[in-house]
Amino acid sequence: MNNFEFKNPTKIIFGKDTIHKITEEIPSDAKILMLYGGGSIKKNGVYEQVKTALAKADVVEFGGIPANPEYAVLMDALKVIKEENITYLLAVGGGSVIDGTKFLSAAAVYEGEEPWDFVRKREPIQKGMPFGTVLTLPATGSEMNSGTVISRKETQEKLAFGGPALFPQFSVLDPQVITSIPERQLVNGITDAFTHVLEQYMTYPAGGLLQDRFAESILQTLIEIAPRVIKDPSDYEAAANFMWSCTMALNGLIQQGVPGDWAVHMMGHELTAMYGIDHARTLAVVAPSHYKYNFEAKKEKLAQYGERVWNITEGSIDDKAYAAIEKTEAFFKGLGIDTKLSDYTSDYEGTAEKIAQRFTDRGWKGLGERQALTPQDAEKIVKMAY
Amino acid sequence: MNNFEFKNPTKIIFGKDTIHKITEEIPSDAKILMLYGGGSIKKNGVYEQVKTALAKADVVEFGGIPANPEYAVLMDALKVIKEENITYLLAVGGGSVIDGTKFLSAAAVYEGEEPWDFVRKREPIQKGMPFGTVLTLPATGSEMNSGTVISRKETQEKLAFGGPALFPQFSVLDPQVITSIPERQLVNGITDAFTHVLEQYMTYPAGGLLQDRFAESILQTLIEIAPRVIKDPSDYEAAANFMWSCTMALNGLIQQGVPGDWAVHMMGHELTAMYGIDHARTLAVVAPSHYKYNFEAKKEKLAQYGERVWNITEGSIDDKAYAAIEKTEAFFKGLGIDTKLSDYTSDYEGTAEKIAQRFTDRGWKGLGERQALTPQDAEKIVKMAY
Repeated sequence: MNNFEFKNPTKIIFGKDTIHKITEEIPSDAKILMLYGGGSIKKNGVYEQVKTALAKADVVEFGGIPANPEYAVLMDALKVIKEENITYLLAVGGGSVIDGTKFLSAAAVYEGEEPWDFVRKREPIQKGMPFGTVLTLPATGSEMNSGTVISRKETQEKLAFGGPALFPQFSVLDPQVITSIPERQLVNGITDAFTHVLEQYMTYPAGGLLQDRFAESILQTLIEIAPRVIKDPSDYEAAANFMWSCTMALNGLIQQGVPGDWAVHMMGHELTAMYGIDHARTLAVVAPSHYKYNFEAKKEKLAQYGERVWNITEGSIDDKAYAAIEKTEAFFKGLGIDTKLSDYTSDYEGTAEKIAQRFTDRGWKGLGERQALTPQDAEKIVKMAY
Repeated sequence: MNNFEFKNPTKIIFGKDTIHKITEEIPSDAKILMLYGGGSIKKNGVYEQVKTALAKADVVEFGGIPANPEYAVLMDALKVIKEENITYLLAVGGGSVIDGTKFLSAAAVYEGEEPWDFVRKREPIQKGMPFGTVLTLPATGSEMNSGTVISRKETQEKLAFGGPALFPQFSVLDPQVITSIPERQLVNGITDAFTHVLEQYMTYPAGGLLQDRFAESILQTLIEIAPRVIKDPSDYEAAANFMWSCTMALNGLIQQGVPGDWAVHMMGHELTAMYGIDHARTLAVVAPSHYKYNFEAKKEKLAQYGERVWNITEGSIDDKAYAAIEKTEAFFKGLGIDTKLSDYTSDYEGTAEKIAQRFTDRGWKGLGERQALTPQDAEKIVKMAY
């Protein structure tokens, strides 16, 4: 086990009919910017619940934050923050709205000229405007971590950054919100959370016995609740375990003391940036090829995962490891998630080369848990995923 | 799954040679009271490491905090805090020293006359003097929670309390400290952590699918590392997983959204108060009888535990549940922990009645996850444990 430092100060308010509790968390003298996405919160009752809770507060609204939160849109929100002297941000939405709000938290107190500079630099963000969240879509874990991913159409970039100042002060998780989520988004959420765990787990044995078991616990729970959530999103027990699993998948806990991979996300982000494919689906496209390409380096953990999560008891380490990749791909497909790039676009020729070139241009030499994957490796992996 | 609120702001600094990092965590202008126990830290190098780190700081020492931290001793430490105008507390020790420090954190800012009053009232502690910890004995989880248990010889009482102000600001967990811990203490630590998990898990199915799996993960890890830790405490991987498992067993995470029992602790505390039996050993005495006595109420979870943790695949629910209790008792015995009160004292007649009377006197009516156990039930359970 590696040395680590872990602190997660976000307060989680979890359960039925808890949205009204935001009143107790936001300072009464705050001037609040309430941020949301395309307006689904106006149809599912969440908007109403938030507005009712904040009836006595000074609230400005900013809607329209798109999936893969776009820099240009967020810069418009930043103008509102400055003009209206906003002191507190409230994200009401899924990972995109929360991620956009995290960018704004940092941008609101940034002293430089061009906020994109701190995005590109990826230095840990040490100060930000305080913010809370009301989660409407379980998936990214952004509601209980300090990371964010921002996109910029102008440059076709999608970049991750974060820092200790970017933990939400509180996050309200009411599992009832999932009843109005379209199936496409539900399966994206399951796939996203599942892959988050894999990124932190599918590396090499590093002596994190408890971390491994926690990771396996989340994977097993997602596998168990996936059919129930899809069949009936109003199944509260399934919804609650889905929501809590997504949060635990990326709140920092399971990554402590063990190596992380994250190459699947690095390649996946490019596919979203280039083709607009849903984030979760890009992960399902890249992951199986990534694990096959890096089979020798990862086969011990793949086999452990096969044994413990998929109950694969027969065969050699190699057999179990290979079967585990197949089970994973079948799980994604069973959710209705396609796992090849050609399922999403016919215009995929040259994609792998382009991604490799981008990694090279950015000076990214070594991806993966051993920082051993070159842009050329990424090229081969993406080709395998055509 | 029940609604819950969860926030744990303690910063964990985990790993080899990390004690020196306390310098970065304690304000440089603090006047520190360094608290410790019987002096084992002077033999194992921990005292030296802490003193070296704090060479430039203003430090007063208070040693001699006993196991089951004693009110009278702590009141002497409180005098030092007042006389020396202490502003920061540093616990260097195991659960007893940390628990004692938590009491002092609350007592240092308490405005009433007699600190025992807030102990007895068990109202959540909302303010305290800031403190950090350097953990020397994995067991109680006190290093990452806001609870504490204090004993008072004068009244033969042992009472638990806590509150949001009693989270350590930081805790340093260097697994190398366990190399100098006597085997008796190591097995106590394993038993304590194991029972902490059982108290939060061995209730009834409550739809906390992820919480159940996390609890099982900790139990499995403790079972896996126990023989390694006992055989060779310098086995770093085993030590690190032991230490992290103990912390995760009682840092609040696995109890969220699910019922808790804690009756084993309530009865166990009395055995410690009456006979001075090691805390962990009292748990091993009470737990098997408690689970047998409450078999019908707990058998579903007992069977699940038997299946998932002990790989018991044969038989009915009842068979698996009963076998799981036997496996648990055998696990404790395998650690060298006796599981009957008569193994510890020949003077046990009347113990059960006395405990029932104490519970009645304190007005404790319903113990356990359904608040259904009466003092008379406790009497029968303790008798079964003779």
